Amino acid sequence: MPPRFTKIVESLPASVPFVGPETLERNRGAPFQARLGANESVFGPSPKVQQALSAADREIWKYGDSVSYPLRQALALHHGVGMDHIVMGEGIDGILGYIARLMVEPGDRVVTSAGAYPTFNYHVNGYGGVLEMQPYRDDKEDLPALIARANACQAKLVYLANPDNPMGGYWTGSEIALALEDLNPGTLMVLDEAYGETAPKDAELPLPVEDERVLRLRTFSKAYGMAGARIGYAIGAVPLIAAFEKIRHHFGLNRSAQIGALAALQDQDHLAMVLDQISRSRADITRIAQTNGLKALPSATNFVAVDLGKDGNLSRAMVAELAARDIFVRMPFVAPQDRHQGRYGIVRKSISRRLAGRAHCCG
Amino acid sequence: MPPRFTKIVESLPASVPFVGPETLERNRGAPFQARLGANESVFGPSPKVQQALSAADREIWKYGDSVSYPLRQALALHHGVGMDHIVMGEGIDGILGYIARLMVEPGDRVVTSAGAYPTFNYHVNGYGGVLEMQPYRDDKEDLPALIARANACQAKLVYLANPDNPMGGYWTGSEIALALEDLNPGTLMVLDEAYGETAPKDAELPLPVEDERVLRLRTFSKAYGMAGARIGYAIGAVPLIAAFEKIRHHFGLNRSAQIGALAALQDQDHLAMVLDQISRSRADITRIAQTNGLKALPSATNFVAVDLGKDGNLSRAMVAELAARDIFVRMPFVAPQDRHQGRYGIVRKSISRRLAGRAHCCG
Repeated sequence: MPPRFTKIVESLPASVPFVGPETLERNRGAPFQARLGANESVFGPSPKVQQALSAADREIWKYGDSVSYPLRQALALHHGVGMDHIVMGEGIDGILGYIARLMVEPGDRVVTSAGAYPTFNYHVNGYGGVLEMQPYRDDKEDLPALIARANACQAKLVYLANPDNPMGGYWTGSEIALALEDLNPGTLMVLDEAYGETAPKDAELPLPVEDERVLRLRTFSKAYGMAGARIGYAIGAVPLIAAFEKIRHHFGLNRSAQIGALAALQDQDHLAMVLDQISRSRADITRIAQTNGLKALPSATNFVAVDLGKDGNLSRAMVAELAARDIFVRMPFVAPQDRHQGRYGIVRKSISRRLAGRAHCCG
Repeated sequence: MPPRFTKIVESLPASVPFVGPETLERNRGAPFQARLGANESVFGPSPKVQQALSAADREIWKYGDSVSYPLRQALALHHGVGMDHIVMGEGIDGILGYIARLMVEPGDRVVTSAGAYPTFNYHVNGYGGVLEMQPYRDDKEDLPALIARANACQAKLVYLANPDNPMGGYWTGSEIALALEDLNPGTLMVLDEAYGETAPKDAELPLPVEDERVLRLRTFSKAYGMAGARIGYAIGAVPLIAAFEKIRHHFGLNRSAQIGALAALQDQDHLAMVLDQISRSRADITRIAQTNGLKALPSATNFVAVDLGKDGNLSRAMVAELAARDIFVRMPFVAPQDRHQGRYGIVRKSISRRLAGRAHCCG
């Protein structure tokens, strides 16, 4: 007699929300020369992070601080909120898992956009939730429609990535605040701000942290250049944040990574330099796309989606062609966004130029 | 209207299965000089781990391998099993959470020992499981009684730490295999081998990895000296291991930590050296306890429980007294084990000698 899994687990397929670059490299039998498909930061973290990691590694025999006190204290100061408004997790992915566990019971409705972040869907499915998928509109998550749909199905959660992955656009914080006025009580907006640092100032949500209608998610994986560290956090009302203490894995965070993230946060000069480089790279890519007769979508993130002007078949061919040339990019998963050859990843000028030349050859 | 948490979450208290040393230090307003209460390895990891971590940290901007391919490949070779018999997790704590999620539905019975690892209980409670607590017997987890109890209540899971934390003893692998013969089908034994490396050879379970009655858990936190890395793994039958793919956090592991763990595994000479030091330290502590009129329990782990010969009140006084002298130890949580002043942690000779002198002063 095999083990008796739960009913939900029995019903679930094995699932891989995101195939990692290393798996793709093993499958093709060769490494990528340009690793752009995971929206990592090739600019890397502050040199002070490297120093902090090296020092911390000498004490890797110690467990990390299970409440991440110094890091949460610094984040609280940074965001101008109390420490009890912040909880850490193993990247935003980890926090999405905790949110699903906190809120989703079998049959509960959850609203997101068709083609939005698959790992959120993975966790919602994993707790038996029923996903309602709202199509994008004009290459953006359709905020008013998401709210209306959440109200119509009495959703427990409604997901919005702001700025958005995979298209790169954003809603202003004021627009989101206004939309929240229409959201029925009892639905929580999961506001994934993984790219919050790279966004314009007006993307910031102008609501008090005590507002129980929304939970914001942040990470050190993108602009801070520490994807491998697995340090994310949620900012929200105290009752929401306190609930994580009932279920979270208290010792899930790597000790050195916590110390490194603190160093990253404290070097805002490096962050500013990176944000400037990202901004200039986005402009470069936009120009290169235009030069090649293609349209780059406006981006508030560390990647640019380039519209190839046809359908998903061309995009798939382009991704394959680039892979054959050792360049790793991704494309949006679903129509109509999949006409974009999602040129993910921060692109250094040098890499973007090389990419563009090659794209011109085959595109 | 506040967010609508799940029924289970509403019913759960906020819970801290283990208060970390840093929290204790903040509460007392001073650091510990000797950090022995978390069973960490003060011998530290191999110097090759430090090198590997430093090299890997330079690429912390990359996500880690979501299937931990090189590390699982090496572990599979090390244990003489196929890669599909191994799944990684954020320490054994993380894997215990996944196991509870895979198996435990509200009301399901789960058997463990009163005073055994609290984080297992935390996760079982967190999924609505009902814990059945079997008392220790003669300072050991009562294996036959655990099996009988699991059968009586048709438990989904029965937990056994081997070697045991907090008492340090162990059952031979043959004894466990024999006991499993009596276990009803449909109950999975969670065999926590966090201290597997420090145990005598005969603690090894003489069963094929395909055996679906048991899932073994291992970690790099103890003998390998990498508690801060958060790298644990489970070894078991393919259907069991495959189930984790339905629910686990695929990008939960720190990238550098995965690379460091591989270096740790590949330096078995360092491990042997550490095991020798642990063995000699255990003998030292035993001798010191005897010299002071106390009894050290036989230990197959990297810590020694010292029997103070009275009750929990004396043990609590001793823990407080040692804390006042900047020495962090823990004691077992429940009677009758709490008469032990659980002198956790690998103890270097120098530290153990100093400890012993102080224990003599106040004990």
